[in-house]
Amino acid sequence: MQRGFEQHEYEGRLKAAQTLMQNAGLGALLLSTEPDVRYFTGYLTRFWESPSRPWFLIVPASGKPVAVIPSIGAALMAQTWIDDIRTWRAPDPQDDGVSLLTDTLNSLTSGAVGTPMGYESHLRMPLGDWARVQAGLRARVRDDAGIMARLRSVKSPAEIAKIANSCDIAARAFARVPQIADVGVPLSKVFRDFQRLCLEEGADWVPYLACASAQGGYRDVISPASDVPLAAGDVLMLDTGLVHDGYFCDYDRNFAVGAPTAHVASAHARLIEAVDAAVDIARAGTTAAQLFHAMDRIVTGGQGGSDAGRLGHGLGMQLTEGLSLIPQDHTVLEPGMVITLEPGIETAPGKMLVHEEDIFITNGEPRFLSPRASAAMVVL
Amino acid sequence: MQRGFEQHEYEGRLKAAQTLMQNAGLGALLLSTEPDVRYFTGYLTRFWESPSRPWFLIVPASGKPVAVIPSIGAALMAQTWIDDIRTWRAPDPQDDGVSLLTDTLNSLTSGAVGTPMGYESHLRMPLGDWARVQAGLRARVRDDAGIMARLRSVKSPAEIAKIANSCDIAARAFARVPQIADVGVPLSKVFRDFQRLCLEEGADWVPYLACASAQGGYRDVISPASDVPLAAGDVLMLDTGLVHDGYFCDYDRNFAVGAPTAHVASAHARLIEAVDAAVDIARAGTTAAQLFHAMDRIVTGGQGGSDAGRLGHGLGMQLTEGLSLIPQDHTVLEPGMVITLEPGIETAPGKMLVHEEDIFITNGEPRFLSPRASAAMVVL
Repeated sequence: MQRGFEQHEYEGRLKAAQTLMQNAGLGALLLSTEPDVRYFTGYLTRFWESPSRPWFLIVPASGKPVAVIPSIGAALMAQTWIDDIRTWRAPDPQDDGVSLLTDTLNSLTSGAVGTPMGYESHLRMPLGDWARVQAGLRARVRDDAGIMARLRSVKSPAEIAKIANSCDIAARAFARVPQIADVGVPLSKVFRDFQRLCLEEGADWVPYLACASAQGGYRDVISPASDVPLAAGDVLMLDTGLVHDGYFCDYDRNFAVGAPTAHVASAHARLIEAVDAAVDIARAGTTAAQLFHAMDRIVTGGQGGSDAGRLGHGLGMQLTEGLSLIPQDHTVLEPGMVITLEPGIETAPGKMLVHEEDIFITNGEPRFLSPRASAAMVVL
Repeated sequence: MQRGFEQHEYEGRLKAAQTLMQNAGLGALLLSTEPDVRYFTGYLTRFWESPSRPWFLIVPASGKPVAVIPSIGAALMAQTWIDDIRTWRAPDPQDDGVSLLTDTLNSLTSGAVGTPMGYESHLRMPLGDWARVQAGLRARVRDDAGIMARLRSVKSPAEIAKIANSCDIAARAFARVPQIADVGVPLSKVFRDFQRLCLEEGADWVPYLACASAQGGYRDVISPASDVPLAAGDVLMLDTGLVHDGYFCDYDRNFAVGAPTAHVASAHARLIEAVDAAVDIARAGTTAAQLFHAMDRIVTGGQGGSDAGRLGHGLGMQLTEGLSLIPQDHTVLEPGMVITLEPGIETAPGKMLVHEEDIFITNGEPRFLSPRASAAMVVL
């Protein structure tokens, strides 16, 4: 698979953004997070792991985006299609990009500046510096009117191909779990080894892995691994968000350590049944809430929610992004949306199983990106 | 190595925070980022990779911290020493923790609420929700007066032991680089395989890796890997930030692919000489700026800076944190500070070598956490 995108992909994103900006009356978009900056530039580095330097991208009402970034990133940004790259030597305790950002914004627009302020967003810069920027701007700052969330929610075929590739890598790693997991192996070793399998199968890196192994179901799906050895009767769950070329997969698999009890086998089958019910209605025009209810009817009898909070979500440049499968989210599905179906079921008080698949919405039936699991659990 | 810390470690952190809060006139601290929340709780999960849910910790003027978190995290937070855990079912489009956070803050203090607003900080929640919280607070919100940065800058012996362990894991992985890197191997394969080595040697996960391989020096130190095969005459650089039990190492190694040219060998020796010069003066009482100048004299003849921005930084719960080795940072070194020494040298226009070591400051000579490299490069 070729890395990156053709330039027309970025040109299309930019054009779509500028149309929405015009409708919203915005003179510029100010972006500060990794996925938002990468969305328009293709700028891909793990250096965002360091919190020490802010990075900015400005999308003007017309013309190409302008990068306002630390000089350490100039060479890499120059490899992208962006050509207006303004830099400062960060960190600078006196002025860490504040005046450069302010001046650049002032030179590009006298209209309102929009920045993401809604669900799932944050501003990746110190609040103190943000106050200084706002004080120096001629323009007013307001919410981006949901433009970034809207743009990123529908994936292009090239983006879907990248997510599919990440899902394929994870599928090959999941198929090798019997090589690394057995009775007596500490869960922490399985946790490390599964990341190794993801890398061997082609992941660039593995930003997310959760796992659990416990008798008859597990307590949560967000814990790192303990050193407790796998035991007969455990359900082993591995939930991975690996990345290839900047796009995530996010799905899990449950393995029975030894033959599962009838209760566990039945609970797992119900999860698959819930996925089937969601897939049956996952069409353009269906809402996120309808998918929730289709699954919730099967896993809880229709209680309307759980402490996990949702039964699936959008997926793409981030592990989770965009819509949530919850009763209150009435987002209408559109072709090109990539979502996870993630029903959970209680197996005993404080114990559960969770199954997750990745699909995308088309003009017809949804397509699986993860290999559709069968009702029968894989036995280790 | 035992995971986590004894409870008295957290009690000490809390007591120190509350003393500083009293001096600063703060009625509560509001924290929203992974390391700040973990600093007082030990709450460790990779689930922060998902941007969908905000998490909060409140440190009151007296008494234990209070967690205000999504219900999906309650079971894991209950494993820590925190016992006041208030939850909501996130995501909630109508009220995503806003009223719970506001009410909790109002119940805990009528004094000023401090939150990190300075260098290296950000607020991990939507700006729109932040405005709603502020509107509902009885108390005024202001900067945390640098309390979090101050607390985290000096590590306890237990923290240093964890960083040392991460450095040891990386050392074992670096020692195995000859197993994975040779002429003809694509850099992207080395990049994946080195992460695998880190995991095999005991890393929990590998949040950061940069690498480069090029003739006579490389363009930058933040790029991910290309598919270009290693060639004789290349310098291969691997810079890793792996994690064990929530603490990072951050250092690199340079390898000569085939015998290095005299020019490259000499440049590498100068980097080691620069590290030596910094180590010679890295004592309690020395400033960050003095360490910078000691190295800068050797690598540039004293030009006073480069586009990389700094010649080292603090290290701990994050890949980079705290002080910067730059001319403008006059932070005074104290025993317990863990820093990297990271001089870079230009080998040709647009090409460089960077070497990095991790040390900590004591009452006497600094101690190396990474295995001190010799002037001679390792030849592959």
